[in-house]
Amino acid sequence: MSEVKAYAAQSSTADLKPFDITRREITEEDVEIDILYCGVCHSDIHTVRNDWKNAKYPSVPGHEIIGRVVKAGKNASKFKEGDLVGVGCMVDSCQHCDSCKEGLEQYCENGATYTYNSPDEHLGGHTFGGYSEKIVVDRKFVLQVPENLDIKAVAPLLCAGITTYSPLRQWNVKKGDKVGVIGLGGLGHMGIKLANAMGAHVVMITTSPDKSQDAKKLGAAEVLISKDEKEMDKHKNSFDFLLNTVPVGHDVNPYIALLKRDATMVLVGAIEPLDPIHGGGLIASRKRIAGSLIGGIEETQEMLDFCGEHNIVSDVEMIDIQNINKAYDRVVKSDVKYRFVIDMKSLKNS
Amino acid sequence: MSEVKAYAAQSSTADLKPFDITRREITEEDVEIDILYCGVCHSDIHTVRNDWKNAKYPSVPGHEIIGRVVKAGKNASKFKEGDLVGVGCMVDSCQHCDSCKEGLEQYCENGATYTYNSPDEHLGGHTFGGYSEKIVVDRKFVLQVPENLDIKAVAPLLCAGITTYSPLRQWNVKKGDKVGVIGLGGLGHMGIKLANAMGAHVVMITTSPDKSQDAKKLGAAEVLISKDEKEMDKHKNSFDFLLNTVPVGHDVNPYIALLKRDATMVLVGAIEPLDPIHGGGLIASRKRIAGSLIGGIEETQEMLDFCGEHNIVSDVEMIDIQNINKAYDRVVKSDVKYRFVIDMKSLKNS
Repeated sequence: MSEVKAYAAQSSTADLKPFDITRREITEEDVEIDILYCGVCHSDIHTVRNDWKNAKYPSVPGHEIIGRVVKAGKNASKFKEGDLVGVGCMVDSCQHCDSCKEGLEQYCENGATYTYNSPDEHLGGHTFGGYSEKIVVDRKFVLQVPENLDIKAVAPLLCAGITTYSPLRQWNVKKGDKVGVIGLGGLGHMGIKLANAMGAHVVMITTSPDKSQDAKKLGAAEVLISKDEKEMDKHKNSFDFLLNTVPVGHDVNPYIALLKRDATMVLVGAIEPLDPIHGGGLIASRKRIAGSLIGGIEETQEMLDFCGEHNIVSDVEMIDIQNINKAYDRVVKSDVKYRFVIDMKSLKNS
Repeated sequence: MSEVKAYAAQSSTADLKPFDITRREITEEDVEIDILYCGVCHSDIHTVRNDWKNAKYPSVPGHEIIGRVVKAGKNASKFKEGDLVGVGCMVDSCQHCDSCKEGLEQYCENGATYTYNSPDEHLGGHTFGGYSEKIVVDRKFVLQVPENLDIKAVAPLLCAGITTYSPLRQWNVKKGDKVGVIGLGGLGHMGIKLANAMGAHVVMITTSPDKSQDAKKLGAAEVLISKDEKEMDKHKNSFDFLLNTVPVGHDVNPYIALLKRDATMVLVGAIEPLDPIHGGGLIASRKRIAGSLIGGIEETQEMLDFCGEHNIVSDVEMIDIQNINKAYDRVVKSDVKYRFVIDMKSLKNS
């Protein structure tokens, strides 16, 4: 075991501050990683502030981790010192349930071990995330990062990237499909880039007309302002797929109206209750709503390789760890384009 | 054109009474049918009482029609005098949109012509349904009825049957699947019979413990009382498919919890707003909700043939047309096992 520097919150109302945590020595299965960059996901804030009523303290968030391998266990020989690697939302799962066997560790029937705030079966207590110098992770949950990418901007791919990539792939989005991305934030901006790279005709659907120009720069062919009923009417029954990234409960009925017969809207953000859905809107054209949670490890690797090939990274604003609390306030106000990434070098100064 | 006897409501508050309507002479494309039996669907009541705010008067409902061919037009030579035939919810559609070309006339992009309450392009005004002596229908919307079945009990297959058969087929319900049928009424009782005949392990899900015995007689292997939280917990994440036949808005969250990862609940009854759905319940295991509307003509024929092969009919209570208003009151109170069917011979006495 070793003590490493980290940033943690001690309660739901406390700011994040320097805090030393313990990391395990690597086992034969493990990889030890020096963390270079860590993205800031809205889930970090929900956890630290106990919005989901399941926070554990001290809370060290961070599940968009990019780093370099320091040491690899005997059975982790795929990795060697210096390799550029990533760790996303999960660090373990049961490996024997049907979901795990299908490579869908995020749906592990015995509960995946999340990168933070999950029971830690090695050290007891709970897992600590990426706002720290180092992390030790089972080899099966370590991703290989293409070296050609701007690596600090790769960090958000580990959560925002895979969360949007997985449903686009699972629902077979293909060249020429008309795909709507609802909501332009951390998830939405990745949705646009990825759907565009898959050859889709991407329509950014937003309440804010002032996001139009940005959306087009990111790869949207069109922007649809959801408050404009006339424009919404024109697009009725025309979408092959909708990726709904809105992170809170909202009225999805106007979006259901946009779907073609047999088409699906996938929710990736709203874990809260939605406004009442009109059954008739689904029945009238056999429309579908589904949810999707991040992606499996194999699919996450596929996503990273896809991003390497298509030169896709996240749009990021770099911060030092000392500014994390201010960054949280800005994330809550949606005042970031589109993801904060912590330069973990800054932790040395704490 | 010819005058035929029928039963109609003249306003949303009026009882149905004898009323003469006009039927067209057959064209080369048409089949003229003497109506023997007509099922009573809850939609008939919604239409007559203007619950959906689109009723047209005089209103002659009825879209579960069984009869014998009297005459067939030149291009309808597939049918000959005396053939046992059925007419369901639709009597026409555009025939050239993508949905029609795929045999999904119920999703006709230009609007299918429903058996009643739709614009009548032949005579002007609106279409009149099956509570009448005769009907003249385009050959493409006339179904062939297997002669081996108890024909008065076939009538409800034309709506309740196809409404439940279509989603079971579209979502590939197969031998050994654990299928839940939610709600035991006209639709639910057909859902049990059909899913059972497809080889599924059928669980009837109901709020009423007193429906258990009936459900088992109909083919349910198990009955799950949805108010029993402990029992509901035992069945969590275990269903391959849920057919939700509840005809009104309700809380679907407890049912979503029953679905396996990637499994779907299809709504066929509730065209009203549902209680707020928790996005998290869908996201956590990539679950799906969809709607489904009756079925296409080809699939309706397939359903009738399937029922002929498996000797499946509806459980019915026969009435004379003179008792239709009382029957409506009983349908509204769910006091029927499970479908009223009008013996149209009784119309002669009006």
